[in-house]
Amino acid sequence: MLSRREFVRLSAAASAATTLPLNLLAQAAPVKKLRYAPVGLGVISVQHFMPGTRRSQFGEITGLVSGHPDKANKLAAEYNVPAGNIYTYETFDKIRDNKEIDAVYIGLPNSMHAEYTIRAAEAGKHVLCEKPMAVSAKECQSMIDACKKNNRKLMIAYRCHFQSSYLQARELVRSGAIGKVEVIEGAAGFNSRPGVWRLNKKMAGGGPLMDIGIYALNASRFLLGEEPKVISAYTSVIDQDGRFNEVEENCGWTMKFPSGAIASMTTTYGANQESFVRLHGSKGTLEISNCAGYEGIGMTLHLNNMGSNETTTQMDNAKDPHQFVNESDYFSQCVLENKPVEPSGEEGLRDLNIMTRIYEAAAKSA
Amino acid sequence: MLSRREFVRLSAAASAATTLPLNLLAQAAPVKKLRYAPVGLGVISVQHFMPGTRRSQFGEITGLVSGHPDKANKLAAEYNVPAGNIYTYETFDKIRDNKEIDAVYIGLPNSMHAEYTIRAAEAGKHVLCEKPMAVSAKECQSMIDACKKNNRKLMIAYRCHFQSSYLQARELVRSGAIGKVEVIEGAAGFNSRPGVWRLNKKMAGGGPLMDIGIYALNASRFLLGEEPKVISAYTSVIDQDGRFNEVEENCGWTMKFPSGAIASMTTTYGANQESFVRLHGSKGTLEISNCAGYEGIGMTLHLNNMGSNETTTQMDNAKDPHQFVNESDYFSQCVLENKPVEPSGEEGLRDLNIMTRIYEAAAKSA
Repeated sequence: MLSRREFVRLSAAASAATTLPLNLLAQAAPVKKLRYAPVGLGVISVQHFMPGTRRSQFGEITGLVSGHPDKANKLAAEYNVPAGNIYTYETFDKIRDNKEIDAVYIGLPNSMHAEYTIRAAEAGKHVLCEKPMAVSAKECQSMIDACKKNNRKLMIAYRCHFQSSYLQARELVRSGAIGKVEVIEGAAGFNSRPGVWRLNKKMAGGGPLMDIGIYALNASRFLLGEEPKVISAYTSVIDQDGRFNEVEENCGWTMKFPSGAIASMTTTYGANQESFVRLHGSKGTLEISNCAGYEGIGMTLHLNNMGSNETTTQMDNAKDPHQFVNESDYFSQCVLENKPVEPSGEEGLRDLNIMTRIYEAAAKSA
Repeated sequence: MLSRREFVRLSAAASAATTLPLNLLAQAAPVKKLRYAPVGLGVISVQHFMPGTRRSQFGEITGLVSGHPDKANKLAAEYNVPAGNIYTYETFDKIRDNKEIDAVYIGLPNSMHAEYTIRAAEAGKHVLCEKPMAVSAKECQSMIDACKKNNRKLMIAYRCHFQSSYLQARELVRSGAIGKVEVIEGAAGFNSRPGVWRLNKKMAGGGPLMDIGIYALNASRFLLGEEPKVISAYTSVIDQDGRFNEVEENCGWTMKFPSGAIASMTTTYGANQESFVRLHGSKGTLEISNCAGYEGIGMTLHLNNMGSNETTTQMDNAKDPHQFVNESDYFSQCVLENKPVEPSGEEGLRDLNIMTRIYEAAAKSA
């Protein structure tokens, strides 16, 4: 095992990174908050983003957008949202006249991300939009353009960019702790229920790659700090049970990065596949376990250079919606202080471009 | 955790498979043994195959082939090999006149496998040849042809085909325990010392794919029981330290099988990469850990179908050269009873063909 002192040395830079980039704690004045309206009241909004924002320091829920009045009314009561701040998809554009809402959180099916991001930006609201950013690179670009034109912030909700295991891991890779990264393994998948919008190509844009494989893909780019140069891929459908008439069931791909690092990954909607990303370097191995998880994300550093053989595992025991608290606070502060956001729309677009290349490579070989 | 009873049910067929296919224990007559001469006295012969055969029931070491007289004499004393049964590479063909040697074990650099297999077959000896079978598919075919022409047995020494975790895993896959296999992950690699023959293209035929990646590749075929339909791949060299002037340092590849199962794998000589193969099915996941190991190979079955969430891990605690004992005994019995061998030369050729396709795919994209 790595000694405590050794680990402290290695993760010195990493520790700094786990502190959020902006911190207003020292201010004496009453805290100004960013006022959010979640758009779409599905699981991700109701069970994760909204409770996360309620617990955050710099965000609060002041509006709601939903096609289900009953659900909206119930949540409005819970979050003290006035009736006048509840919108439907039909009345959504009137949000521009509401001075009690600064930003929206887009928790809709993927195909609606572009439309509601653009409408929100045109209504003068900042946008925090779920991943995947949209169903095409073209849509991503129009979202970026609309937010730029209206001088609104746009962030893609890759919550893992705010998670301590990821941040420590990135700093360890950057610091050279594992040497040069040679090969990367990664995976994320689950056995999908039938009848969900994720299986509808028009709404989802694609299959498990778009929804869950994106975590392993994004994590490899985030940790390595490079963009893939070339990509090859295959997709398949095995289960002819009606679930996969529109999107792929399985996808496997290999990417080569400019440094020469090679990553091979798989994703599926046909099996429960534990998510992880693992970087093998000349001096050691670094793994993020449960890399797509809402909680319980671990980081394992194994050093095997110069005869050493030491393993350190750190588990993030913070409970869901912890990642959403951090994400919400970060975006809130970026808007309140007018700072650039990261992961930006451009970051979301990069993943869309890569996933498009993966689907194109798979289609070519079909 | 899986209950004992549940596990027994699932692995009923598997248990049978862990018993070696042929068993002469019941015979009363004195045991007839197959008499081996190892060709090449490197680590694999001296530390693994020879001690394994000494402990086996149906094999014994009665000859030696080496270019190092000192080493040969020392081992001859240890194994009671008469001086007249020691050959050099120059005198090798005279082995045909030796009635005390039935078979050879080829533990040479890859580029010498074909030549010595063919010369042994022509000298009337059966051949147990290390993996990879040779450096090209053409060589493999000539080895198969030579053994057929001389009516000699040819087996490729994939020792994992005789290892209990592998055998149990294959039976579990065949029995449908994990349902339909959707995606497969696999890896195997190590940080190579400089100056070894494995880095010499002419002697090795290729890099880590040929030497260590082959374990993950072969394991996926062995467990799935299918041959890849299409393959894409990349190779790279990152460390410009003289080690990789001839062979690849890293390789990643994705394979699609006829059933639709997709496998993504990596291998490297630039990092210590723990070997494993993991099959994700519609009802559960099956993993072989340390899949390239001489000992300590584990099998983990995780069932997650119909609300179940049970994990069973079985570790093979038998110590090296246990796998070589089994392998040696199996080949010995096949020869003594004139039974077909598996893994045959055709099986070795299949891997060579696939590795050739991997290198071709990587070359195309370079």
